Amino acid sequence: MAYRSDSADPVLIVGSMALDSVRTPTGEVTDALGGSADYSSVAASFFSPVQIVGVVGDDFPKEHLRFLADRGIDLAGVRPISGGKTFRWAGYYDFDLNIAHTLDTQLNVFADFAPVLPDAYKDTKYVFLANIAPKLQLDVLEQVRNPKLTVCDTMNFWIEGARADLLKVLERVDIAFMNDAEARQLTGKMSTVKAAKEIQAIGPKTVIIKKGEHGALLFAGDEHFSAPSYPLEDIADPTGAGDSFAGGFIGFIASMDDLSPTTLRRGVIYGSVMASYNVEDFSLNRLRTLTERDIADRYRRFKEIAYFDALEEAVL
Amino acid sequence: MAYRSDSADPVLIVGSMALDSVRTPTGEVTDALGGSADYSSVAASFFSPVQIVGVVGDDFPKEHLRFLADRGIDLAGVRPISGGKTFRWAGYYDFDLNIAHTLDTQLNVFADFAPVLPDAYKDTKYVFLANIAPKLQLDVLEQVRNPKLTVCDTMNFWIEGARADLLKVLERVDIAFMNDAEARQLTGKMSTVKAAKEIQAIGPKTVIIKKGEHGALLFAGDEHFSAPSYPLEDIADPTGAGDSFAGGFIGFIASMDDLSPTTLRRGVIYGSVMASYNVEDFSLNRLRTLTERDIADRYRRFKEIAYFDALEEAVL
Repeated sequence: MAYRSDSADPVLIVGSMALDSVRTPTGEVTDALGGSADYSSVAASFFSPVQIVGVVGDDFPKEHLRFLADRGIDLAGVRPISGGKTFRWAGYYDFDLNIAHTLDTQLNVFADFAPVLPDAYKDTKYVFLANIAPKLQLDVLEQVRNPKLTVCDTMNFWIEGARADLLKVLERVDIAFMNDAEARQLTGKMSTVKAAKEIQAIGPKTVIIKKGEHGALLFAGDEHFSAPSYPLEDIADPTGAGDSFAGGFIGFIASMDDLSPTTLRRGVIYGSVMASYNVEDFSLNRLRTLTERDIADRYRRFKEIAYFDALEEAVL
Repeated sequence: MAYRSDSADPVLIVGSMALDSVRTPTGEVTDALGGSADYSSVAASFFSPVQIVGVVGDDFPKEHLRFLADRGIDLAGVRPISGGKTFRWAGYYDFDLNIAHTLDTQLNVFADFAPVLPDAYKDTKYVFLANIAPKLQLDVLEQVRNPKLTVCDTMNFWIEGARADLLKVLERVDIAFMNDAEARQLTGKMSTVKAAKEIQAIGPKTVIIKKGEHGALLFAGDEHFSAPSYPLEDIADPTGAGDSFAGGFIGFIASMDDLSPTTLRRGVIYGSVMASYNVEDFSLNRLRTLTERDIADRYRRFKEIAYFDALEEAVL
């Protein structure tokens, strides 16, 4: 049951490293570890070595860097800005946990961030552009030399405010993650299927639509996979669900070093496993204690939840 | 590939028989065959013999009765009211096809309807109380003698306007169908999982939550099944989707005469198959030409859509 092999291909991840203040109906945290790169790197680190590219101020607690390093995450690409303040997001969720209400965003050191890849990262085969300004995602794509798989995530903020750059990113990546509302927002199509196909036509051959409590959809070429929802009764904090989903996905794919349809589908399930655990506690707290046994148990649970009949033959 | 066996247990279905006038972004129909009993009976008839209990005015076109009879549906329980007018519903859907907007409802012969079961129906083992006033559902429950399985469906209108009667129905049935919004409305719980458990606590051991384009969930005791969504690009008319879903479900269960967890799950998929076909055309038109081969093909497609890994052993 060892998912993680240190000899596996590493995943290069660029995204935000943040201090989040979050309130939900069940509790709140202040200046807790957050950010798309942190969530996705920790989730990916259960499967593959990770190289993180980001920026922090000197107020970023050393214990967070130690936690990341302890998970085998390479921090050579993390730029600490002396005298700078770390990116901060403050928000809350009401009873509809699907909707994040932003109270405050402080870009801080992100305002002038230009990612610079350490030379050792430029040949990394698996590249994940976590949710961050599309311009910075493009900067990273310019610096990697011959990636085997490029994956991006994004959010409504960039679809509205940086559409042209986002389209350039989509033209160049192999796989795009988006939630269903974002897919509709980007394409203007009400039908998730039509929206996904339109995104495929922009560039990425594979589109993964996250639907929160309704599971996820994978569109790969003409192929379609519907991943089951996990019946969570109590969600403490939905922050980072999408990031840990994508991180689990790319970490698993890199650990298999395989892009077959079945591996992509299993990656979606491992992503769902990581997201379903992540939302059980605030910040990245649940992932701090998560074991490989936990991951295996929930993966198996997903199989039980989805089962209704055996497929007579391998068809994918 | 013969699903339907005339020696299978029949399903008794009570519900509305209607003439619907429906407009959607792709077209419209006027006074077309509709109603919960008609949709669910025709869907069930692909699997089992059906006994329909309902009421029509003498304006109900004979060709509709012929169509139902041709599908092997027993009409002995249909009461024609001389000089009465058939129940009529008029409504439309905008681009969000999940929301039906009612323009006009004419109860007509339904205003004084009290279902009377032919003697031959009173020992029917499989009973489906399609969407209709809970009071009428209770009337039917009073008349059946020793059913093996009772299943009910309902809608927001009755949750709001006939809650006490609906709760009485729920106390007595084995399986309840509801869509996710209705489950929330009935229980006041945002979480679908919590809502389903609360409905189970009222009475039905099994609750099936319909989620439209997001598939369906089955809660059976502590067991949980997440049925995949079907990637429909073009929906002509969502009217009757829930009815044909439930009809396909109960028809399949009766044809198997088995209530095992696996059969219930497969019933949910056959229900999804029937609903996914039904919405491809207006009224019941798609079901008029549907073949057993079509059903088998789409059932197989659902298996492919849901596949990501083999379950090592039978666990359900």
